[in-house]
Amino acid sequence: MKQYTVGVDVGGTNIKLGLVNRFGTIVEKAVLSTRHVNKSRKRLIDAICISILKLIKEKRLAAKDILGIGLGLPGPIDSKRGIVSFLPNIPGWKNVPLKNILQKKLHIPTFIDNDVNLITLGEWKFGAGQGCRNMMCMTLGTGVGAGLILNNDLYRGEGFSAGELGHVPLNEDGPACNCGGWGCFERYVGNTVLLQEASKVFRNKDIQLPDIYRLAKQGDQRAIRFWEKTAIHIGNALAGVVNLLNLRLIVIGGGVSKSFKFLDKTIHATIKARAMKVPAAMVKVVRAKLDDDAGILGAQVLVKESVSGR
Amino acid sequence: MKQYTVGVDVGGTNIKLGLVNRFGTIVEKAVLSTRHVNKSRKRLIDAICISILKLIKEKRLAAKDILGIGLGLPGPIDSKRGIVSFLPNIPGWKNVPLKNILQKKLHIPTFIDNDVNLITLGEWKFGAGQGCRNMMCMTLGTGVGAGLILNNDLYRGEGFSAGELGHVPLNEDGPACNCGGWGCFERYVGNTVLLQEASKVFRNKDIQLPDIYRLAKQGDQRAIRFWEKTAIHIGNALAGVVNLLNLRLIVIGGGVSKSFKFLDKTIHATIKARAMKVPAAMVKVVRAKLDDDAGILGAQVLVKESVSGR
Repeated sequence: MKQYTVGVDVGGTNIKLGLVNRFGTIVEKAVLSTRHVNKSRKRLIDAICISILKLIKEKRLAAKDILGIGLGLPGPIDSKRGIVSFLPNIPGWKNVPLKNILQKKLHIPTFIDNDVNLITLGEWKFGAGQGCRNMMCMTLGTGVGAGLILNNDLYRGEGFSAGELGHVPLNEDGPACNCGGWGCFERYVGNTVLLQEASKVFRNKDIQLPDIYRLAKQGDQRAIRFWEKTAIHIGNALAGVVNLLNLRLIVIGGGVSKSFKFLDKTIHATIKARAMKVPAAMVKVVRAKLDDDAGILGAQVLVKESVSGR
Repeated sequence: MKQYTVGVDVGGTNIKLGLVNRFGTIVEKAVLSTRHVNKSRKRLIDAICISILKLIKEKRLAAKDILGIGLGLPGPIDSKRGIVSFLPNIPGWKNVPLKNILQKKLHIPTFIDNDVNLITLGEWKFGAGQGCRNMMCMTLGTGVGAGLILNNDLYRGEGFSAGELGHVPLNEDGPACNCGGWGCFERYVGNTVLLQEASKVFRNKDIQLPDIYRLAKQGDQRAIRFWEKTAIHIGNALAGVVNLLNLRLIVIGGGVSKSFKFLDKTIHATIKARAMKVPAAMVKVVRAKLDDDAGILGAQVLVKESVSGR
């Protein structure tokens, strides 16, 4: 009986895989470094296939036990036709019909989507967003992305590129961004920018975000203030989203979310100060629950919805 | 046979009514000034009822010919239960079960929604947005509002207050706004602000927006620059919306849209400069087509969708 799904979360530095039972528990996991294989598309695809088959075999299962495979990839994905439009951080991917390629190799129904969309589906069905009709899940890391559940459905946008929260302008004038624009949200809260800022504040070039979290926990005022400043930027961006979309919930994941307890109050206060009364009173901002497992669990949601033809 | 719908667009200064045939043509219209009646809720409701009945009678029709009545009101409306939450610019309205009140008086199925939502439905089905799956319709007037069609459906938000585009922050710091926030989009492009700006630019306290449109048409550089500056603010706000929602179309209505031909190029150029490539290439920004009729026609969309239980 087809009871299991495989979730694959393809990142720039590694690939996380998980075998998930029908109740939504990850029964087997694997991590694969992409460093050696991501220079060639063929090698990357082969490595993914081998890892998937190994994962299935390790649990003494076969293709017939697998309802489907779900892959999340870091870029805009035509999830309907199963085509990778392109991957900004992995060269050699442009209009690749990955769904068909994998299905031919593996003989298992395969579905692909943007990585943040899968994380969003995971948090929605298994994590912080359970039962929520209108929510956004944002990931704060090197990049800043978001997935949207609107009217109880994943909203992908006209060309599958919705959720580019990191490139929503936070100011009319502002620092230049990789995307070609300027004043983008990511230019205020992306990891690279935060570390630059931190090296100035703490006069230390080696300081990392977990260090600043620990310092804040120890009561270091510079560290506390550092997170507060970050939280104001986040709150300013979210105030706009809240006014535009009147969401019930905003889930924050990614590396920066590990310092959520130093961000929480200021994010809420900023939203309350800047957004309209009705939507501000209604929205909750919470920390993601599933961490690294979100994408693998979200893949199950994608597989189930796709197989049932939703 | 129930072939007609009645649309009612309740504004702060007047109420527009229209009788619409089943093909979507307005066969009879009326306008009612709200000035004398909007001080008392009862008087306003009575005036609306009398006007609706008069409109039906004038075409020698009866209640049995009317499929339903749709009303748009300027505020957050619980369209599901038919309750007016409140109307910011008309006192005395708080949690009013208007749908039931009108149905009891008129014996015709009645549905209510936010006025900009009805305008959006009108432009979507009969105007500039026909066939569009993902679009936003914004109205630029004294206030700035927006309605969203996402995944082929009107998106109302968790508490029926989605689309508060006028209060999306355009800058982290910025001028104080009526809403209690600051730096809101409306504080840069709302009519009041534009007129203040214009009185400085043209050193004339009486100048109106249509005057600046005419001056631009005559080649007046100050007027052309005035609209360009306005268009940059609009483009900056829309760049964020485009990155977040990856829309196919943005429709601009309201008074300011009359100068669309002096805004058009700069709005597009600003979006192209600031938004990501994929969503920027995909979105079109156009002028609304239906002007004052949008809400009345949108009311028909609401009535038909509500009657058919969508």
